[in-house]
Amino acid sequence: MTDRFAKTPEPPYYAVIFTNQLSEDDAGYAEMGEAMYTLALAQPGCLGAESTRDTTGLGITVSYWDNEDSIAKWKAEAKHLVAQKQGIERWYSHYELRVARVERAYSGPEGRSLR
Amino acid sequence: MTDRFAKTPEPPYYAVIFTNQLSEDDAGYAEMGEAMYTLALAQPGCLGAESTRDTTGLGITVSYWDNEDSIAKWKAEAKHLVAQKQGIERWYSHYELRVARVERAYSGPEGRSLR
Repeated sequence: MTDRFAKTPEPPYYAVIFTNQLSEDDAGYAEMGEAMYTLALAQPGCLGAESTRDTTGLGITVSYWDNEDSIAKWKAEAKHLVAQKQGIERWYSHYELRVARVERAYSGPEGRSLR
Repeated sequence: MTDRFAKTPEPPYYAVIFTNQLSEDDAGYAEMGEAMYTLALAQPGCLGAESTRDTTGLGITVSYWDNEDSIAKWKAEAKHLVAQKQGIERWYSHYELRVARVERAYSGPEGRSLR
């Protein structure tokens, strides 16, 4: 049940929050998205990722990284650059990308309660 | 096309990244989820939110806040406490919640290119 959750270490670490809307012409996106997800997880410093998309094409992918240098190297990775170019030119009608420093983290619902 | 994206100000600000898997018994969740989304957006210090969920029930909601004090007040809001209790007891089979400080942000694909 937890295999689509990133098993991240104790904070601090970094999160790249990528919210994106696929355009109607998303031919080729599924294969590339899957390939980039796998490639990201194999990058040095990648701590994991979580990704979901609804039936309207709105997706959120959050990838987790040990530091900003690892994020910069992933941004510049050759195959990823090809994917980014196609994303900008064809696949995404809009996106927001935010880089954030994770300061606190909690899991549940196991062992959690509210008084 | 951009109404499901949060219109956040220049960083820094805070993000609450909530990744969750709905359990099979999610009766009542849809109404409560919608109500909490609307209530969160009306809280002091809430800068917006982005939310999506796939057909397997894996959801990611990212809410954005001006500071940690606003996040603490939202955590303690009375109706939200009722919702959190039901989430822990019934709706979520697993979740990860991370609080992060957004340091950089970018929009696209308008005006963006890769050399």
